[in-house]
Amino acid sequence: MHDPAQPDLLAEKPLSPPPQTWKLTLCYDGTDFHGWQIQPGAITVQGELQNALGRITGEAPLPQGSGRTDAGVHALAQVASFPLAARIPAESLMRALNRILPRSVRILDATVMPDSFHARHSVVAKTYEYRISPGDPHRCSPFLARYVYACPWILDQTALNESAAHFLGEHDFLSFAAFDPDLNTRSAGDAPSTIRTIFSSTWEQRSTEGDLLVYSIRGNGFLHHMVRNIVGTMIDAARGQITPDDIPGILAARSRSAAGPTAPARGLFLHSVEYP
Amino acid sequence: MHDPAQPDLLAEKPLSPPPQTWKLTLCYDGTDFHGWQIQPGAITVQGELQNALGRITGEAPLPQGSGRTDAGVHALAQVASFPLAARIPAESLMRALNRILPRSVRILDATVMPDSFHARHSVVAKTYEYRISPGDPHRCSPFLARYVYACPWILDQTALNESAAHFLGEHDFLSFAAFDPDLNTRSAGDAPSTIRTIFSSTWEQRSTEGDLLVYSIRGNGFLHHMVRNIVGTMIDAARGQITPDDIPGILAARSRSAAGPTAPARGLFLHSVEYP
Repeated sequence: MHDPAQPDLLAEKPLSPPPQTWKLTLCYDGTDFHGWQIQPGAITVQGELQNALGRITGEAPLPQGSGRTDAGVHALAQVASFPLAARIPAESLMRALNRILPRSVRILDATVMPDSFHARHSVVAKTYEYRISPGDPHRCSPFLARYVYACPWILDQTALNESAAHFLGEHDFLSFAAFDPDLNTRSAGDAPSTIRTIFSSTWEQRSTEGDLLVYSIRGNGFLHHMVRNIVGTMIDAARGQITPDDIPGILAARSRSAAGPTAPARGLFLHSVEYP
Repeated sequence: MHDPAQPDLLAEKPLSPPPQTWKLTLCYDGTDFHGWQIQPGAITVQGELQNALGRITGEAPLPQGSGRTDAGVHALAQVASFPLAARIPAESLMRALNRILPRSVRILDATVMPDSFHARHSVVAKTYEYRISPGDPHRCSPFLARYVYACPWILDQTALNESAAHFLGEHDFLSFAAFDPDLNTRSAGDAPSTIRTIFSSTWEQRSTEGDLLVYSIRGNGFLHHMVRNIVGTMIDAARGQITPDDIPGILAARSRSAAGPTAPARGLFLHSVEYP
């Protein structure tokens, strides 16, 4: 029904609807990814997600994660947010993403949120889990090996528990942060700070998959490598290299070299992210 | 102390000790292997094992498995045997192999056996396990996806149980064997036969890792693809494509086309191998 009196050039373009803010909850096996954050020439979770969104909607917003996870780190419930103009039922978006994404990433939930929502800025608490398989690392089950740190040392359970308690509350965690100063800052607009509050910090034994030691830590934020450095330091205490009561001094030192080694990525899971 | 009167050429060579027969028990995540059997240009469990033995001992015997496992099939306790002239303590051989082998293969035990032992010919029973994760396959956890068949159909538990019972006892399993006639024969020197005896055949629900349906079958031998074809046929019965009482007729038909599809490799585990 082309009307020559109304040439196309003058036709009003259809108004594209204003973008909506989406929240995705996703889990992933981090073994085969170069971490969350998009990088040229590397397979990343953020990159795979952006690519899948582009194929489904023709838009390719960069999904913002609640935080980065490093190469090899897993997520049971990472959260990402992004704007999308296309109007798609949440169930359809989730199904389409799960058809396109590699099997090692699964979308657990998709929801349209108020525009004020941001997966990183809106976080009120995050929980990480760290899984250790004690015993000879050369005998670690191949079905566990991707998901645990096979720790060769004999670990004293009491020392682990006492060490964990020292991290509770508000502390300056500079000693437990990776060196990169950019990563020692919060992005919420406040001054760079390495102060964080830990709400819980506990070890449990989990025997369903062969006697694992599992550490859970919940806090209002985490510096880069912070959980892995805390775990590495607690292992030092549990094998007698330091004592649990050395930990307050390590926190006070505000120096990475005061703390223990960085525990391997494969044992770390982003367990959950909480919002108001 | 070289004595020119006894030139080296005439020196007696040291007698190499007669080879001993070794039995290895090993587990592997089959996801990244092209199956058990060595093939040029492909990464196989048998090939990795032969290579590791060669690096440790300078001998490279071809380890004989209790049977082949196909690409993607896992083993909780595969058994292999081979001759080795080198005298090595069992614990040392096991540790050395576990240092060299990829993390996806672990040696669980190493033992010197009587020379009559052969990992395949000496088998008296084998047990396989098949793991199904029911529900939307596009939502299957990335931590399970390598180790289960994410089955999209609603499966009737009673039909699964009734179907499983039909396989008990001695039957001609030609309908459940892959077409290749070479693989339908036993290698124990007797006439080609597709008759096998099944000692147990049961389904259980396992809820530790998210409500799996797990099938266990123990028998005196299995044809190529036999467990996966039995599972595929039981799934046909459990989703109403056939009835469990059709199974005796499928066995009697002695024709692959009478049975159901081959269930995916990823759900299958060689659970254990028994010897006299």
